Formats: sequence, structure tokens, C-alpha cells
Amino acid sequence: MQEKLSPSMFIGIQGDDYISFGSGQPDLPPPERVFKILPDYRQFKYGLIQGQENLRNALSKQNQFKGSDKDSFVITNGASEALDLTFRAICKPGDKILFHKPYYYSYIPMAKLSSFEPVFTETIKGKIDFDDFDKKVRDCKCVLINSPSNPTGRVQDVNTLKKIEKLCADLDITIISDEVYKDLIYIRENYMLSGPHVVTINSFSKTFAMCGLRVGYLYSNDKKIIHDVIELKTHTSMNTSILSQEMAYEATKVPREYIKDQVKIWEKRRDFIYEGLQKLGLDLWKPEGAFYVLPKIDNPKDAVWNLFKKHKVITYLGEWFGAPDRIRLSYALDVEKIEEGLKRLEKYLKETS
Amino acid sequence: MQEKLSPSMFIGIQGDDYISFGSGQPDLPPPERVFKILPDYRQFKYGLIQGQENLRNALSKQNQFKGSDKDSFVITNGASEALDLTFRAICKPGDKILFHKPYYYSYIPMAKLSSFEPVFTETIKGKIDFDDFDKKVRDCKCVLINSPSNPTGRVQDVNTLKKIEKLCADLDITIISDEVYKDLIYIRENYMLSGPHVVTINSFSKTFAMCGLRVGYLYSNDKKIIHDVIELKTHTSMNTSILSQEMAYEATKVPREYIKDQVKIWEKRRDFIYEGLQKLGLDLWKPEGAFYVLPKIDNPKDAVWNLFKKHKVITYLGEWFGAPDRIRLSYALDVEKIEEGLKRLEKYLKETS
Repeated sequence: MQEKLSPSMFIGIQGDDYISFGSGQPDLPPPERVFKILPDYRQFKYGLIQGQENLRNALSKQNQFKGSDKDSFVITNGASEALDLTFRAICKPGDKILFHKPYYYSYIPMAKLSSFEPVFTETIKGKIDFDDFDKKVRDCKCVLINSPSNPTGRVQDVNTLKKIEKLCADLDITIISDEVYKDLIYIRENYMLSGPHVVTINSFSKTFAMCGLRVGYLYSNDKKIIHDVIELKTHTSMNTSILSQEMAYEATKVPREYIKDQVKIWEKRRDFIYEGLQKLGLDLWKPEGAFYVLPKIDNPKDAVWNLFKKHKVITYLGEWFGAPDRIRLSYALDVEKIEEGLKRLEKYLKETS
Repeated sequence: MQEKLSPSMFIGIQGDDYISFGSGQPDLPPPERVFKILPDYRQFKYGLIQGQENLRNALSKQNQFKGSDKDSFVITNGASEALDLTFRAICKPGDKILFHKPYYYSYIPMAKLSSFEPVFTETIKGKIDFDDFDKKVRDCKCVLINSPSNPTGRVQDVNTLKKIEKLCADLDITIISDEVYKDLIYIRENYMLSGPHVVTINSFSKTFAMCGLRVGYLYSNDKKIIHDVIELKTHTSMNTSILSQEMAYEATKVPREYIKDQVKIWEKRRDFIYEGLQKLGLDLWKPEGAFYVLPKIDNPKDAVWNLFKKHKVITYLGEWFGAPDRIRLSYALDVEKIEEGLKRLEKYLKETS
């Protein structure tokens, strides 16, 4: 049965008896104001394929997109669709895409699905090894950077990111920068990769806990990429839900303090699970952002399967992320539940030791 | 400038001075009950990739899906995503897909985008020529049937549909049946293609005027296709907006009379525009379903461009639909506006005659 393990079997499973370290979904609700617009909402017609103007305007006025305008954004069904469309807009079948390991599990099937060839650069404790990166990137069409990273929780050094920016600009290689965890970062402010060669992927799912409503976006100064993504989206899904977009627009008005307060909660949980797993004797890297840990474990397939079936604890297999000797735990749940989950994990570890 | 004409330049354009025969979007609002659930809505977590259970259960209990269960459905970001995922689940690069001409404009770029090869069967006044179909289908991986048709408004004969069902079953070729206009049909009840080889595509956009909210679905008895589509969707967009799905679920409770009353309105408009265009001397087929007409016109590119720029009338170029000597008009607007649009069209025709 373990052979059949896949992320889709866990997504959406809810129930009080389960402790889910699985899907990366905040448990705290979105800011209340995103729901406040609902009672009077009566729109129903197709929206612009590129996304609603109010939302794109609001994004263009945010600090990190200084100097941009609404035409540099496309609103999508979550960051997932933004990524799928960006890959399909940039690459032709056979083109190579560079990923750093461990990687978010959807990247590879997404690339293969469109007959693009994934190429990998190894990391050292989750940090990009620039020399290896330099070697591997040269015959790639584009490169995917994900910092803070799902599944490692690691944040790439600013120095490395700047070297990557320069190298890719020199080589005319597009950087697709998945920064969906840009606001959930514990060690410094996010460094946003930028320049004419960069496509930034982002989302309202993590910062504002709006996963199920599916609003993501891409940002680029490359007019051709924006045009081509819109052309694709016209055929493959049309506009993103206009109501979800209106809720996302409300989220753009939420004061920065909201995010700061959220980060404090995440950091406490991070400390709790990091120390807890260390106490259980597991080998892991300290997360610097996002809400995942990726400890080593013996027989990971048995672990994920038995934790699920016997102990009602959902974890994800490291293999899906290119880390076959590890499992991923999301700590997007309250400390009491993390504690209960760690107890069950301890029980499992004792049984199998 | 006419060279740059594309559907995406018109979608979402709204304004009182324009008469839009462009996008296929009902002007009448959705049933009020779909909005009634909004004030108390507070969900925000990821939903099941396959779609919410209440919605899939409700669909499985509808007459046309008799004997089905919730596992035979996947809820998608409109019919567009259902189509894109179904093609990608069934075909490999190089596989041939058969389309009948004229076709909905997204089919072809959607197929080419994934390196599938579109193959065409001609129609006679919009009706499938079974002999030609039989010849062309034999080396195809799957075939797309769209009845009632966008852009022709034509409905395929039941006899032809039954022959297609049998032939494709014998040849082990999948039929993808795009029936998004199944409820907007003037000449008889819809005949739903069925059998283990059929994937039915449908949507809440047309029947319930919910275009902008993006809820479509696919239905199939082929467990492998359902599984593969879910696997793809896990990576390319995850769940469809849970709030849009909840609104669609409300729509499933709307009594059948609502649809019957809608059809009466559409039929009046159909008669009005069909007679109006005939009076202007245009050559066209009588629509039997959906809400489009596809008249012949001289210099279609000039017509679409000048109608838009000079007369503020949006029409679509027949070329996008594989009908280069025609233009498409959607009559999803009230009779007064259709009348005004026809006046402007008359003016244009006089200017150019």
C-alpha cells in the first residue's frame, strides 16, 4: 500500500482525530475584512483574463513592486497556476529547467507534464551551492528559485541571490522566483529577486490564509511573458474567480502589523517543533522561513504510512520533494496539536526502534 | 492593426457605449439563492482537489447522470480547465485530436500548447458529416464533440451522435463531449453522449450565468481518467475556489422551471437576431441551441475591426473558430441592445457596400 502514497490522498482530509502535519495550510483564519464584502456582492460576469484592475493596481503600489504598474501582473488560480502558465509560456518541449533540491513536489510533475526536462542542483543544508549552480544552469532555459523554501524552510543568502541575479542576466536565462513565503520569514526581510529576467510568483494563500479561495499572481517586467501568459490563460482557464479576487483586494488593505503579528505566532511554533524534533533525536535543519521542517527518518515510506494508519498523523514523504531519506512536517497548526503530534511521533519511533 | 485582433482584447470590456456581441456571457443574473449563502460564509482552507463532496453528490443525483456517484466528477475552474486537464490526461505529445469545424476558438491553441495535433472534420451547415468523420477519426487518440455548438449554435442529430458513440467505442477512441450548452437548446432535449469511452464537460457558467465565478466539471466512468485528472490538477491549480463551488452547490437546488424560463428568453432573442440578420441580407444557419450566430460577411477582419473602432460593436472573427469567411455574434444581451447593435451593423454594411 505504501507504494500508492501521494499528496492528493491527504489534501482536504479533515477531522478532529487526525493531526495533520501534511498540507501547507495556515490554520488561523484570514483577516475578517476579506469576508466583510460578501453580503453585498452581486457580480457574476467574466472578468479580465489578466485579473481585476483594482487588485492589480493595489499590488503595483506595494513597496516591493515599487515603480511597477498594473500591466506587470497576472492574477491566477493560486501560485500553482501562475507557475504552470509561466513554465508553459517560457519553455518549449525538451527545454531544461533548473531546480534546487529539495524542491516543492509539484514543480517536477508540472515540468514533465509539458515535456520540459528538470535538471537539479544540490544544496548544502538546504542552501544553494553557487559553484554547482553555475555549472548546471548554463544549458537551461530557466531556473526556479524558491526562498523561503517549501519543504526545507531555509532562506537563501542574499549574497547567493545577488550572484544568481547577475549570472542569469548575463546568460539571458529567466529566473522564476517562487516567493509565496516572502512574508513568513524569521531571520531578515525577504530579498526579492529582481530585474528584467525575473518572473516573481506569489499568492494570498500563505500570508492571508486564503488557500481554498485560490488567488495567486505573477509579476514580471518582461512584456512578452505577460502577454504570452494571458494568451495561455484565455484558453486554459479564463479569469480567476472574480469573487476570490475581490476578497484578495480587501486583503491588500490589511495593515502590515497583521503580518508581523502572524510571524510571531509562526516563530513560536517553529521553535516548538524544531526543539521537539531535536529532543526526539531527529536530524534536521533549522527553518528560517515558511512553516515546514524536513527531518531525516528511517524507512520514510513505512513512517508516513504507519503514522497515518496507526497514529492518525499526516506527514509527507521526503521523496516527493527530492529528499528520499526525510519526511516533511508542516507546523501550520496550534502548539497543542503540534505537541500531541510529537507525542504520537515519539510513540511511533519507540515502536520501531 | 487588424492583424493583432484576438479574443483576449475584448474579454472583460464593459461600458454602456459598447454593444458587445463578443464574449459568450449571459447578461441576466444568476438565481438569487447563489448569493444568499455569502453573508455567513467563513471557509478558507484548501478543499479536495477533486471538488467539494456536497457539489459532486448533488451532480451525481441529477437525471442525466443517473447511476453515477460523486467519484465520477472533478470540479474545475470552468469548462476551460476541465478541457485542458482532460486533453493532458489522455494524450501524449504528437497524439491526434479530431475537431468538427467550425470549433470553439480555445480548442486548437489548447491542443497545440501541449503538442497534440488537431485534425479536422468538415461539417455541412454545421452538422457533422459522418462519412468524413469516420475517415478522419481512425488514427486519432480522442475526438471533441460540441453540441449545441459554440460558435454555430447548431445541434448534432441524435442519429449521428449514436453512430459516433458506437464507432468510438468499437475503435477504443475517447469522446470528449463539451455539453456546456446542454440546457440552452430550442429544438429538443439534449442528447447526452454516454458510455465508458465518454468524458462529459460541463459548467455552471451558461445555465446559471456564473461565468466570472469559474465553476465547471468533468464527468467520466473511466476511473483512470478521473484519477489522472486529479493528479494533474494537484500540481497545476489545486482545488477550485471553495466559495465559488458553494455557490454552484446552491445552483444545483434551483428548480427546473428556472431553466425553462431562461430558454424562453433565449429563444426570443434567437428569433430576433436571426430574422434581423436575414433582413440585412446576411447568409447564416439557424441556431438550434447556445446563443451564437455565425453569419458570412465580406472582409471579416475589416468588419470586426471597424465595427469595434467606429461603431463600438464587439464581434468575434470567424477565423478564430475555423470559419474564415464569417463573424460570430453572441446574442446574450437584451433585445433592445440587439436591436441597437443590428442598427450599427446595418450602418457599417451600408458604408462598405
